[in-house]
Amino acid sequence: MSTKVISEAVIKRLPRYYRYLEHLEQEGVSKVSSGTLAGMLGVTASQVRQDFCNFGGFGQHGYGYDVPYLRRKLAEILGLDRQYDMIIIGAGNIGRALAGYKNFAAEGFKVRALFDIDVKDREIGGIPVLGVDKLADWVKEHGCDIAVIATQKSVASDAAHQLVALGVKSLWNFAPIDLEVPDDVSVENIAMSESLYVLSYRMKTKREEQSK
Amino acid sequence: MSTKVISEAVIKRLPRYYRYLEHLEQEGVSKVSSGTLAGMLGVTASQVRQDFCNFGGFGQHGYGYDVPYLRRKLAEILGLDRQYDMIIIGAGNIGRALAGYKNFAAEGFKVRALFDIDVKDREIGGIPVLGVDKLADWVKEHGCDIAVIATQKSVASDAAHQLVALGVKSLWNFAPIDLEVPDDVSVENIAMSESLYVLSYRMKTKREEQSK
Repeated sequence: MSTKVISEAVIKRLPRYYRYLEHLEQEGVSKVSSGTLAGMLGVTASQVRQDFCNFGGFGQHGYGYDVPYLRRKLAEILGLDRQYDMIIIGAGNIGRALAGYKNFAAEGFKVRALFDIDVKDREIGGIPVLGVDKLADWVKEHGCDIAVIATQKSVASDAAHQLVALGVKSLWNFAPIDLEVPDDVSVENIAMSESLYVLSYRMKTKREEQSK
Repeated sequence: MSTKVISEAVIKRLPRYYRYLEHLEQEGVSKVSSGTLAGMLGVTASQVRQDFCNFGGFGQHGYGYDVPYLRRKLAEILGLDRQYDMIIIGAGNIGRALAGYKNFAAEGFKVRALFDIDVKDREIGGIPVLGVDKLADWVKEHGCDIAVIATQKSVASDAAHQLVALGVKSLWNFAPIDLEVPDDVSVENIAMSESLYVLSYRMKTKREEQSK
């Protein structure tokens, strides 16, 4: 097995390729060129080919890529060919929204429980909501692949530490704070405010250009 | 006014600098070095100085940066020194969660109304929920700086077209689809599934490394 380190830029493109290939497959398209994929992603056809070369290549020169085959290979690469047990820490607005997100379950990411300091509802869409005092016992009994941190900023770090101590290896973080974790724990951040501020930056830049 | 084009990488770092400076200011820290900011962002001190050079520099050689001053300048650059009227298209889980997000209002992003095909509640946290048939009249009467697209994938594109036709210049898109908009319209995407798939990719990569 190659131990080549794949760059972050390539890693972040993989889910986008996957999404486009899912769409093409649903539309019944059987093959796609690197040029077409390049156009969908906003990169060059050469970049597309280079990206896939990291994983073996997949296409036939002059033919392009077989859509169902490429989607399956990308699903394997992305680890989408198995199921993941998820828990959500924080049963507020964001936690409840994520618990209700049907797409995740369809792709194998199953929310098994939510945890909160203040349990208002005992279940959300059939998923149990438990007091955070039950977290340790629950994880020891059921295990947990991915923990979603959907708490307030002030408790996110403590939640992360507790989860790491319980052996959870992946955190999906919606709190606006950087989590410090050991090297063997993966973290992905959804930085909503940062995205919104990029939008206001772009709006301001356009306003300034228009006033020249 | 300089018409220099700032790179996407720099633009995406700006909100992160802003968040760290907010935190430092709240902690009462009065000055910070490029080295410290670099450590917080995971870049080099030289990169930090280069980033700020795009906007005039801000620091004094050997002194570092004055925290409150730098935060204010970044707030100006990010356009956070004014208020923005936001509407949310889609009053489902995600739309409701965003409507309840107190942080946005605190930073000047005020949600004025939600719109949905199927209006279940007439208001969420004091914010009116209206039928989407009322959207055109509402935008013509009240205006709209930013429209959040929190609909299902199948209707997101139509929602975007309608908003653009109504003169909305900024879209914050939570639907898992690329929106096609004219050049004078800004779009920021929150691609939740893509983030989750990057997490599963990392988990798979770690599993493979451990099994060697």
